[in-house]
Amino acid sequence: MTVSHPLDKATRLTETVPGHWRGEAIESYSNMVEAFGGVVAASLLNAVQCDSRVQGWPISQTVNFCKGLALGPYEIRSRLQRSGKYTQHWSLEISQSGTICATASVITGQRGQVYSHQPVQIPSVSSYDACQPMPPVAPVKWLDAYEFRFVEGMPVMAAGGLETPGSARTAVWMRDEPAPPLDYLSLAALSDGFLLHLLQVRGIMVPSGTVTLTTHFLASPDEIAAQGTATLLGVADSRRFHGQFHDQHMQL
Amino acid sequence: MTVSHPLDKATRLTETVPGHWRGEAIESYSNMVEAFGGVVAASLLNAVQCDSRVQGWPISQTVNFCKGLALGPYEIRSRLQRSGKYTQHWSLEISQSGTICATASVITGQRGQVYSHQPVQIPSVSSYDACQPMPPVAPVKWLDAYEFRFVEGMPVMAAGGLETPGSARTAVWMRDEPAPPLDYLSLAALSDGFLLHLLQVRGIMVPSGTVTLTTHFLASPDEIAAQGTATLLGVADSRRFHGQFHDQHMQL
Repeated sequence: MTVSHPLDKATRLTETVPGHWRGEAIESYSNMVEAFGGVVAASLLNAVQCDSRVQGWPISQTVNFCKGLALGPYEIRSRLQRSGKYTQHWSLEISQSGTICATASVITGQRGQVYSHQPVQIPSVSSYDACQPMPPVAPVKWLDAYEFRFVEGMPVMAAGGLETPGSARTAVWMRDEPAPPLDYLSLAALSDGFLLHLLQVRGIMVPSGTVTLTTHFLASPDEIAAQGTATLLGVADSRRFHGQFHDQHMQL
Repeated sequence: MTVSHPLDKATRLTETVPGHWRGEAIESYSNMVEAFGGVVAASLLNAVQCDSRVQGWPISQTVNFCKGLALGPYEIRSRLQRSGKYTQHWSLEISQSGTICATASVITGQRGQVYSHQPVQIPSVSSYDACQPMPPVAPVKWLDAYEFRFVEGMPVMAAGGLETPGSARTAVWMRDEPAPPLDYLSLAALSDGFLLHLLQVRGIMVPSGTVTLTTHFLASPDEIAAQGTATLLGVADSRRFHGQFHDQHMQL
């Protein structure tokens, strides 16, 4: 990512003492009033990637969102919990004025090649060029930092909501706007770039937010580099909406 | 769960000071030489469920396995990172002699009913009675603590491995043996009860283990109680085996 890309600015960190980082949540990736969760995830991952102790590449990240991150300065504290032959385990917290806004764990690992097999198939969907960009849906800055072209599952709001629940399935072409060469940080941010499926199922705006986000990085660094600025296809579905929570599983 | 069930003994904790717990990894849930990861997950969850500060019910748990937990005593340290109107965020570590064996995060939440919709369908598979119990496959104690009846995806070992990769899909009837009434702890343990798919795909024993496990609890407490001792159907599949890691997503 070039230094001029907004995501680079949004995730930039300065180490104060080992394991302590400072950054700033900027307006260009704001949600209603606070920071877009995807950029919070990418910033936490960046605290691992920038650490002099890091070995290997991101394998998995879980971010638990406790409280919205306000625009402005924040602190990240990271701890290297264990460093083994194949993996490292990191625990992180992001806070403002001493209040924790999110906790996270990151696993990095060696990606040496021993065996490769991919049962999953790329879904057969309409091409990027055949789909229209999503029109502005909400006065939310971070949406402008991406381009979304829905193949299916674009939320349609209906007065009073939909009578029959809409499909929970989404297929959408996604890319950063402007498009940087793909890297782990932009992938981490895109992981939270799916609109909450409750919107498309109910067809009505209801207060809701991401509580926890787990991202497994199945691609090795060479594959991510080879992706360059090409648009990504994201497919997502939900299994169950119940008791104030719902799941959402996504593939990029 | 009655006090006589082995899982109850395996996950029993004593609070020493607030947020500090002691337990013991027992032989009846051992893996090759160390503790079965599912029981580690259940024990960590139990440290939240037994805490006097807990509000609500488990929503999501992530466990990162850093190092095998040896049989014998261990300590759990839990921190309530944030307690809000709807959710609580917990961070935990399980250690032996000061060395961290696993880190975890748990989110608990209120399960008040506002909206319910379940797009996912129960898969149409052969009944429990029509399937045969899995024969002993390895001298691993924890396997004896469960009954597995495979509908599909039972690993078959072949000398030198399979020429063509086997299917990564699994459908299996699972229950604790003996069967306790289902609760969050037994669900947390069962979440790690799927054999690693690398075995069925390659048809050969290779050293491998769970690195990170995220479990989303989509059922509310009344539904879990209603399940009683009935056998659970587990379905699982993998998307990609590459660069020394593979994913596995499971539904119970």
